[in-house]
Amino acid sequence: MLLQDLSDQIGNVTNCTRVQASIFLFICKMKNSFFDTFTEPILLLDTGKCKANIKSMCARAKGAGVSLRPHFKTHQSHEVGRWFREEGVNKITVSSLRMAEYFSADGWKDITVAFPINIREIDRINELAEQVQLNVLIENEESIEYLSTHLNSPVGAFLKIDIGYHRTGIDPREVTKIKTLLQAIGRSSQIQVIGLLGHAGHSYKARSRAAIHQVHLDSLALMRSLKEKLSVDYPNLLISVGDTPTCSWEQQFPGADEIRPGNFVFYDLAQWRIGSCRFDQIAVAMACPIVAKHAQRKQLVVYGGGVHFAKDQSLLLDNKTTYYGHVVPFKDGAWGLPNGQNYISSLSQEHGIVQVQDAVFDAYQVGDFLTILPIHSCMAANAMKAYRTLDGETLSRL
Amino acid sequence: MLLQDLSDQIGNVTNCTRVQASIFLFICKMKNSFFDTFTEPILLLDTGKCKANIKSMCARAKGAGVSLRPHFKTHQSHEVGRWFREEGVNKITVSSLRMAEYFSADGWKDITVAFPINIREIDRINELAEQVQLNVLIENEESIEYLSTHLNSPVGAFLKIDIGYHRTGIDPREVTKIKTLLQAIGRSSQIQVIGLLGHAGHSYKARSRAAIHQVHLDSLALMRSLKEKLSVDYPNLLISVGDTPTCSWEQQFPGADEIRPGNFVFYDLAQWRIGSCRFDQIAVAMACPIVAKHAQRKQLVVYGGGVHFAKDQSLLLDNKTTYYGHVVPFKDGAWGLPNGQNYISSLSQEHGIVQVQDAVFDAYQVGDFLTILPIHSCMAANAMKAYRTLDGETLSRL
Repeated sequence: MLLQDLSDQIGNVTNCTRVQASIFLFICKMKNSFFDTFTEPILLLDTGKCKANIKSMCARAKGAGVSLRPHFKTHQSHEVGRWFREEGVNKITVSSLRMAEYFSADGWKDITVAFPINIREIDRINELAEQVQLNVLIENEESIEYLSTHLNSPVGAFLKIDIGYHRTGIDPREVTKIKTLLQAIGRSSQIQVIGLLGHAGHSYKARSRAAIHQVHLDSLALMRSLKEKLSVDYPNLLISVGDTPTCSWEQQFPGADEIRPGNFVFYDLAQWRIGSCRFDQIAVAMACPIVAKHAQRKQLVVYGGGVHFAKDQSLLLDNKTTYYGHVVPFKDGAWGLPNGQNYISSLSQEHGIVQVQDAVFDAYQVGDFLTILPIHSCMAANAMKAYRTLDGETLSRL
Repeated sequence: MLLQDLSDQIGNVTNCTRVQASIFLFICKMKNSFFDTFTEPILLLDTGKCKANIKSMCARAKGAGVSLRPHFKTHQSHEVGRWFREEGVNKITVSSLRMAEYFSADGWKDITVAFPINIREIDRINELAEQVQLNVLIENEESIEYLSTHLNSPVGAFLKIDIGYHRTGIDPREVTKIKTLLQAIGRSSQIQVIGLLGHAGHSYKARSRAAIHQVHLDSLALMRSLKEKLSVDYPNLLISVGDTPTCSWEQQFPGADEIRPGNFVFYDLAQWRIGSCRFDQIAVAMACPIVAKHAQRKQLVVYGGGVHFAKDQSLLLDNKTTYYGHVVPFKDGAWGLPNGQNYISSLSQEHGIVQVQDAVFDAYQVGDFLTILPIHSCMAANAMKAYRTLDGETLSRL
């Protein structure tokens, strides 16, 4: 039964006075009222945690003497972006031209698209480069050749260097190739070389602080060594690195000029698993209506599936059980820490099957909202259309 | 180099006459012009294949003497829905109230929401039930109790029966519980029992026609047996079943009154793997700009990641290698059959890493579009905002 109906019927089923009924109702509302107006899966945002994550990363960058150019692909939200601006951040990273346009519209003037340049988007690149300092990622001659003949406005360029993740970028041992690319860029009047950019995405495979630290040391060493080899002709190359795992733990970034973590703004269970964050730093959670309970299997069925959570998965601490999100209690207008093994065991398009322990099974009824931490906040945020803050605000996103 | 630039420069690099250059250009355009106006990942729709899939399923239902109530969660598109209407289909299945509203707006008047009813959406349910024959899925007393006191307009109800998938629904052996629910529904003036509905989703785990057939036999036997046990008090219960694997192969559905397959409208690699379709029946493909090539690893990097494909995965025929999509050639305005082992080996938020053989590696350049069949068309279609038909049309979706 939903709360609003409790209020209609309370007079009928109790013998209490109107005042007693009001007190009872008030207590009930304290417990449940947050979700009263919601009907579908929502993505909750704890602004306090989020702003603390932002402040913490700003302080870390300052302490390490590096610029912070946060990656905005995680939140994709003007409002969340402004919280960075309030902390003095004035340059950002995005992963598509579409995002660059979106954040340019909110006044960001220095934007790196940390994705190998898509020459198909040349018209939009030209348009945006007229308005902001637009930096692109280059890793092949074809792109340089194309930009040289098609750019109408100047862009900055980072050479994308593969510092161990092996997803994109040039092998840093290919110094001759790198020099050739730098020379080709040098011949273009519209492209200005800014520096070398790497993403140590293999840190996501780390499962200990020592493993993260090793990735950090190795990737920075590769970058410094490369910079040294290029220093005669290119003495001013900036070094840009920084993924959430290394940026969450490391105090120093020797040789780096800027860091570009993104996920830390929300964190998630994948980062918790890596060791990048505590549970109480995770700043987003999904809340999903319960539509069915299955006592024999101790499963709750929620309206909340792959189209809401996306389908990133992780393993429970047994290292065997695949899961897609972890239940957290919701009380007094905020969610708490995970308590026991209660998790999404499978996701269909709209269904989430939540495997829970007795206490959770008994505590929730059909019609209640269940609050669940996501495995990968970037993808869940991308799947959802808006954030609902715990203060009741709705924040839009791209 | 993009095609439009070829035309600019052709005079400079050849000694041919203007007429010869035109012929050369025409041939090039024949090969490439389809993608000339696109800049970002797009979801291609082969309307011929899609309409053939629709016709085929309509014929199958007719041949088996069952109604077809196709599931529209796969395409979520007014236009595609109309192709069903042209074949005489007049009732549909969806998986959310939002979809029901969307298709109601295009004139559909008989809609089953094949998802355990979300009582949180009661206001929208009431509104929609005023306009269309709205059928909901019920599997617990809480929902019946809530509907009994909150429905303003009549709805139809299917009891959701678990015919082996164990995701949702009531165990068909719990006949007493089922009778109790039917009696509770009977006491409500606004809910009319229509029948028993099951989804044999475990057919997706089948890897042979024999395995699909066994699921088909078992699930229909469960339904018939249950109907028999209820037949004294409820002689007119309809039986609704039908997933894409069983509906793609079976000629008869003994005891069933309607079938509700959905994915068959597009099919995909997951269905191909199950054995539900041939490659040449898959009616959607992603097309993604190539942004980088890595010769040593024989990998193409495309702009096209988890936010475009979603992250459903499957295994290559070696039963070991995880993949997220398979490359198909694109020629003369249409895609062909997979040729060799060329597949997406990993997906990040915006990146797709495509592992290819030499011939494919050499045939594609940075800036070209690469066409890729998706693992799960429902999720990829949901991730994309529109379809681009091979005739150049854009079809919108919810």
